[in-house]
Amino acid sequence: MPDTLRQILASESALSSITLRGWVRTRRDSKACSFIELTDGSCFKGLQVVIDASLPCYSLMSKILTGASVEVDGDLIASPAQGQKWELQAKEVRLLGEADGTYPLQKKGHTPEFLRTIAHLRPRTNLFGSVFRVRSKMAFAVHRFFQEQGFFYAHTPIITSSDCEGAGEMFRVTTLKQGAPAKPEEDFFGRPTYLTVSGQLQGEAFACAMGNIYTFGPTFRAENSNTARHAAEFWMIEPEMAFCDLQADMTLAEENVRYLVKAMMTECPDELEFFNKFVDKELTNRLQQTLDKPFERISYTDAVDLLLKSGRSFEHPVVWGEGLQTEHERYIAEEHVKGPVTIYNYPKSIKPFYMRQNDDGKTVAAMDLLVPGIGEIIGGSQREERLDLLTEAMAKQGLDEETYRWYVDLRRYGSVPHAGYGMGFERLLMFVTGVSNIRDVIPFARTPGNAAY
Amino acid sequence: MPDTLRQILASESALSSITLRGWVRTRRDSKACSFIELTDGSCFKGLQVVIDASLPCYSLMSKILTGASVEVDGDLIASPAQGQKWELQAKEVRLLGEADGTYPLQKKGHTPEFLRTIAHLRPRTNLFGSVFRVRSKMAFAVHRFFQEQGFFYAHTPIITSSDCEGAGEMFRVTTLKQGAPAKPEEDFFGRPTYLTVSGQLQGEAFACAMGNIYTFGPTFRAENSNTARHAAEFWMIEPEMAFCDLQADMTLAEENVRYLVKAMMTECPDELEFFNKFVDKELTNRLQQTLDKPFERISYTDAVDLLLKSGRSFEHPVVWGEGLQTEHERYIAEEHVKGPVTIYNYPKSIKPFYMRQNDDGKTVAAMDLLVPGIGEIIGGSQREERLDLLTEAMAKQGLDEETYRWYVDLRRYGSVPHAGYGMGFERLLMFVTGVSNIRDVIPFARTPGNAAY
Repeated sequence: MPDTLRQILASESALSSITLRGWVRTRRDSKACSFIELTDGSCFKGLQVVIDASLPCYSLMSKILTGASVEVDGDLIASPAQGQKWELQAKEVRLLGEADGTYPLQKKGHTPEFLRTIAHLRPRTNLFGSVFRVRSKMAFAVHRFFQEQGFFYAHTPIITSSDCEGAGEMFRVTTLKQGAPAKPEEDFFGRPTYLTVSGQLQGEAFACAMGNIYTFGPTFRAENSNTARHAAEFWMIEPEMAFCDLQADMTLAEENVRYLVKAMMTECPDELEFFNKFVDKELTNRLQQTLDKPFERISYTDAVDLLLKSGRSFEHPVVWGEGLQTEHERYIAEEHVKGPVTIYNYPKSIKPFYMRQNDDGKTVAAMDLLVPGIGEIIGGSQREERLDLLTEAMAKQGLDEETYRWYVDLRRYGSVPHAGYGMGFERLLMFVTGVSNIRDVIPFARTPGNAAY
Repeated sequence: MPDTLRQILASESALSSITLRGWVRTRRDSKACSFIELTDGSCFKGLQVVIDASLPCYSLMSKILTGASVEVDGDLIASPAQGQKWELQAKEVRLLGEADGTYPLQKKGHTPEFLRTIAHLRPRTNLFGSVFRVRSKMAFAVHRFFQEQGFFYAHTPIITSSDCEGAGEMFRVTTLKQGAPAKPEEDFFGRPTYLTVSGQLQGEAFACAMGNIYTFGPTFRAENSNTARHAAEFWMIEPEMAFCDLQADMTLAEENVRYLVKAMMTECPDELEFFNKFVDKELTNRLQQTLDKPFERISYTDAVDLLLKSGRSFEHPVVWGEGLQTEHERYIAEEHVKGPVTIYNYPKSIKPFYMRQNDDGKTVAAMDLLVPGIGEIIGGSQREERLDLLTEAMAKQGLDEETYRWYVDLRRYGSVPHAGYGMGFERLLMFVTGVSNIRDVIPFARTPGNAAY
C-alpha cells in the first residue's frame, strides 16, 4: 500500500481505502464540501482532499486550518478539476496537530528575508521544500558520480592543526574558557586547533594510497563578508586522483558538472519547473545549454588578452599576474563564452605552494571552472609531486617544515603525479536552482552574527 | 581499456598492451627476472608483475624497492603461479617515484599503535587500505538505504548555538583571541557557539516539513576519555521520520543494520576475508547470524529482570531506574540473546526532555540497539509531540525557553508523531570489520592530545 504522497501520486489507477498523512497547505470551502490541499513533503505536488459536509468528522473543519496536520482515510479517484489527475475523497479525517492564526506561513507570499528568520518552518514552503529536496538529490548524485567510477569517499578531519594554503581566516576550536590565558598545552588537543578550510592535503595522502578518492563534508571560513555568495559554513566536494594531470582533472570537473545538471533535469522535473517559473526564467535554458555544448577551455594568458581586447571598462584593471575578479570571470562566462568555461595555467605568484609548476617557470597547473550567473564553481590543480620543487615553494612562502613534514612525505615515498579540485556544493545548488542567495540553499545558514538554531 | 587494477582484475580474458600504475608492495628476485607485487589501492588484491632481466629497463630495478611508484606496460597473462589468476608480463617499466630505505612501511608487520603515528601512510597497508575502502562502501550504502526509501538528506549545522540534550561536553568555536576578555557580543556570531553534538533537533524541523529525512555528518564530544570506543570527532547518521512511532523506529533501525551488514558481505568480500583471517576470526559468522536471525526486542524492565536473574555479579549493580552499563549491555547481547537486540522503554528520569512519555508515567519511548562485541550502535526515541508535555519536561530539566522556542514551534504548528535515531558510523564500522579501536577506522582520528595532520 502506498504510504507517502510521492508513492500515491505515482499510482497508475484509482486506489480505494488509502490513508494519507500531511499538512494543510490551503483550504477553501463550498456549500457541500471543503477542499484542502495536503502535502507531506515527499514530493513537490500536493493532493486535493475533498471533505463532504455530510461526514461526521466535518465538525473538525473549524480546526483544520493552514498548517494543521491531519490523517485522512479515503479513496483516490480521478479528479474532475483541471490541472490535477487525482483527488482524495475523504471518508474519515483525524486532526493530528492544530495550527492557529499565529502560524507564520499563511497563504500569502513571504520574502526570502522573512523566511530566513523562521528557518525551522521555511522547509514547509514550496520554495524551500523544493530547494531542500533538490539539495538531497544533488548530494546523492555527487556520491553516485564518484562511486560509480570507483572513487573512495574519505572523511578528512574537521578539526585540524594545519591550515590548507592559508586559504582564509579560520575558526578556533577550544575547550579553554574565554578570558583564560593562552596556554595551548592545556587545551583539549594540547595545541591550537581550527576548523578545516579544505580537506585537500589529507585527501592527497589518501589518493597517494588508494588512487581515486573524494571528500564531501563541511568546511569553514571565518571571513567577515556579508555577501550573497559567502557563508561561514558550507559543504565542499574535493576529489583527488593519483596518476592524473591537469588535462584529466579538467575533464573530470566538466563531467562532474554535467552529471549533476543532468541529474537535476531528470530527477527533479517538478522543482525545476517551479524554479524556472518563479525564481529564474532562464534556468531551464541555461541548464540545457550546459548539456548541449562542450565546455570551453581558455588559458589564463588568453583570458587576460581577451579581456584587454574586449573594449570593456572594468572596475578592476586587467593585469597579467593578478587574479581575475568576479566581473572578469562573469564577462568571460556570460558574454564571451556564453556558457561554462575553464581557465587554466594561472600565474605562479598568485597561487598556493602545492600547485605544480609549469615548464615556463611563470605559471602553475591550476584551473577554475566558471559558470554563467555564478562565476567560479570549481577550483583545482595538478599538485607539485616533485620533492625539490615542493620544498622550494614551501620555503618561498615561509611555511613551517615541521608542520608539513607528513605532506612532504608523500613526495619522499613513491610520489606520483596527482590532481584534484574543490567544488562548492552551495554554488552548485545556486547554479541548478537559480536561487541567488547562498543563505537560501543551506538548511540553517551561518553568516557573521547568525548562528541561531 | 581498463585503467585501474580493479578493472584489470575483473577481466575475463588475457589482455595485451595494458598499462598499470601503482606502488610496489613487495619485491623478490630470481636469476632470470624480478617479481613485484603492484597495488594501486583500487581493490584489495595486488598484481604480480614479472620483469625479465633481459629488458633494458631492468637496470632501474636497483631503485624499484618497496613503496616506489611505477608505471608498467605489458601483457596480462594467465599466471603459472598458485593463488593468482593473472600476472603482468612487463615490456617496459618506468620509475615514477622512489622510496628509499627510510620508507616506514617495509615488508615486516607493524602494530596499529605505530601505524597511528603515520596516519598519512597507513592507508597503503593491507589493513588500513581495507578499512578505508570499507568505510567508503558503507558510507555510500548508508545513503542508498535512505535514498531508495525516499528519505531526504539534510545537512544540519556543525556550528551551533544550542546544544542537544546536554549530551556531552562541547567544543567552543570562536574567532576571539585566547586570553582576550569573554565578550560574546564581539565574537564572530555575536554569541557563544559550539560544535554540534547531534543534528537531531534541527533534523526534527526538517522531518516536520519533508516527512522522512536523515543526516550524515560529523559530530563532536569534548570528553577527556581515552577509550577504544570514543573519539572527539566522529560521523553520525540520524534519520528522523514524521508520522512514525517507536515500533516503526525500531523496525527501521533493524533494517538499517541488516542492510549495511549485507552490503559489507556482498560488496567487500576480499576485505571481509582478510578481516576474518587476521583481525577477528568470528567476524563472518557474526555478520551471517545478523542476517539469518530476527533481531530481538526486550523492554528495559524485562532487561533489568533478566540481569538480576542472571546470577552474574556485575561491577555496577543492576537497579531499575538507572542506566545500563556496557557490561550489562554486552551480557544481554553476547550471552543472553547472542545477537543484536533492542532495549526499549527506558525510565524517564535518565533520558532527555524530548523523548515521548509513555502512558505508565514512568518510562519514555526510547530504544537502544545493541550488537555483540560493540554494545550500543544505535540510540533513538519517539519524540514528545504534545506541546504541554514537552514544555513541562523542559521546565523540569531547567531548559531555557527562549533558546528552544523554535523547537517548541514544531509542536505549536501542525505537530505530528515523529521518531528517529542516531547510529554511530564508526561503531558500525567496528562491527562490520572486527577492528576493535575506533582510532583505526577513522582516517585521521581526533582524541585528547591528538590533532596531528
